[in-house]
Amino acid sequence: MQILITGGAGFLGQRLAKRLLDRGELNGKPITKLVLLDVARPADERLLADSRVQAETGDISDRAVLERHVDRNTEAIFHLAAIVSGQAEADFDLGMKINLDASRALLEVCRAAGHAPRVVFTSSVAVYGGTLPEVVQDDTALNPQSSYGTQKAIAELLLCDYTRRGFVDGRVLRLPTISVRPGKPNAAASSFASGIIREPLNGERSTCPVGGDTRVWLASPRSAVEALVAGCELDRAALGNRPVVNLPGLSVSVNEMVAALREVAGDEAVARIDWQRDERIGKIVESWPGAWNTARAEQLGLVGDKSFADVIRAYIEEEQRA
Amino acid sequence: MQILITGGAGFLGQRLAKRLLDRGELNGKPITKLVLLDVARPADERLLADSRVQAETGDISDRAVLERHVDRNTEAIFHLAAIVSGQAEADFDLGMKINLDASRALLEVCRAAGHAPRVVFTSSVAVYGGTLPEVVQDDTALNPQSSYGTQKAIAELLLCDYTRRGFVDGRVLRLPTISVRPGKPNAAASSFASGIIREPLNGERSTCPVGGDTRVWLASPRSAVEALVAGCELDRAALGNRPVVNLPGLSVSVNEMVAALREVAGDEAVARIDWQRDERIGKIVESWPGAWNTARAEQLGLVGDKSFADVIRAYIEEEQRA
Repeated sequence: MQILITGGAGFLGQRLAKRLLDRGELNGKPITKLVLLDVARPADERLLADSRVQAETGDISDRAVLERHVDRNTEAIFHLAAIVSGQAEADFDLGMKINLDASRALLEVCRAAGHAPRVVFTSSVAVYGGTLPEVVQDDTALNPQSSYGTQKAIAELLLCDYTRRGFVDGRVLRLPTISVRPGKPNAAASSFASGIIREPLNGERSTCPVGGDTRVWLASPRSAVEALVAGCELDRAALGNRPVVNLPGLSVSVNEMVAALREVAGDEAVARIDWQRDERIGKIVESWPGAWNTARAEQLGLVGDKSFADVIRAYIEEEQRA
Repeated sequence: MQILITGGAGFLGQRLAKRLLDRGELNGKPITKLVLLDVARPADERLLADSRVQAETGDISDRAVLERHVDRNTEAIFHLAAIVSGQAEADFDLGMKINLDASRALLEVCRAAGHAPRVVFTSSVAVYGGTLPEVVQDDTALNPQSSYGTQKAIAELLLCDYTRRGFVDGRVLRLPTISVRPGKPNAAASSFASGIIREPLNGERSTCPVGGDTRVWLASPRSAVEALVAGCELDRAALGNRPVVNLPGLSVSVNEMVAALREVAGDEAVARIDWQRDERIGKIVESWPGAWNTARAEQLGLVGDKSFADVIRAYIEEEQRA
């Protein structure tokens, strides 16, 4: 079984790669080769030392790059590469090129290969927006209020049609906002959702750009990676005519996130959060749903996190181990 | 006021052109030039004789063609050009090229012009599909089950984002299936919805490829054209953050269509319909909604047809006048 991960040097890509290598198999077959394609090589040396790993750099909007790494032996593809929300809003053309054109090129390369490989697309809360019910349902219309959300929604539609036509065996997994991400802040509008936990735990200050009442829909890196693997292993038939799954998450207000930080790390940590409204970020984040119905995900056997305090504790443990 | 109609030589394009020329104005401004862009010249000589009309042929997927006909003087664009459902299903690449790439190229050309022209996109019942409520609501998710529907849904998302960013002042008008179209059958899966009325009225036989219980959502050519004009004149503010309107229609079963034909033209006409299931067509048509909620359209002042028998009578009158 050969697997390709686009965005394979990213935080989620590397984490997924490690999980796959630990498991040793996917869809019941041993993993013999795992190609990590990204603009840079993965930082994790242990990953690079694994003989099954092949780290490749290249621009995924260049079809020739994709053609080099997708052939009839590629049985599963995790398409994680993306321009994040804040950057796609700031640079419209770059977002269109990577989030839309590269996704389409990947589907075209799979179609040309002719063996209908399994393709997992990660999508996002950002496909929703506008006037939303308190809990988004599986049949709630997409009305993205950002270019990132628009591009993700378009890539979803493409994947569904390529799947319906038998060009690929696709599945769209809509991820909640991932928190707590390790490392540095990034250009995602949701970057704060990790920053206001991670930086205070590291003894650093962090600015929260949205109000405490803002409700966010979160998943831990661990549960996101488990969902990607489980989503890839789902039976085609179980997905029916709609291969899109809203993954499990935790609906918490920013105040509740802060309360969980206090529970785990005390008042001292909480005091390191500065509250300063950022209109540009607030407008994007507040257009996203604070919760969605997870009945379908649960029916499909996908499970989420128990509590945000547990998510913080797991983050601390993992950082200490790293 | 200069106007561009893509697909301007098509049935709806020519009809819209005549309506605009008769009105003489749009958005309160006199129409000085009306460019009809299509792969062929319009057949209607009266249209071509109007000094305001400029008929242009060209491939709208060629950006240079669009650039020739969109500049800062182009104040309104009706984008009607499309590959119809049956053909887009049969020729995937052609559908992608015209329904997606050309729509995107048009938006890019408008963006480059820099004056945010008003752009009216026609969309379709085909953006819906899968498990649907009996009456589709404004917030019902799109789940197209055809490549045509997918391409239309993507073009909608693009138009909405280009509008949100201020590149264009766009409006998506989702049309019901148009019936009764004059002329010949075409490659649309919905072609029968005109054929089973038109051919019997002309003394010819027509085959109905779906069952009598199949519910369809119809609008007459006249009400569709009125809605396009009214949609273009809608206040931006009235559309809020979702410039998509499900246009008024009539929900009728095929049996009810036949009963209306009997009412207007008698048993003799009805006897000219042959019933022969076509799986390929049935699968597409049956994935479409039989009705959608029109409350928003009505609130915006858009009105539909009264009864299908009236639609047939209007068709007969118009054909006699032509």
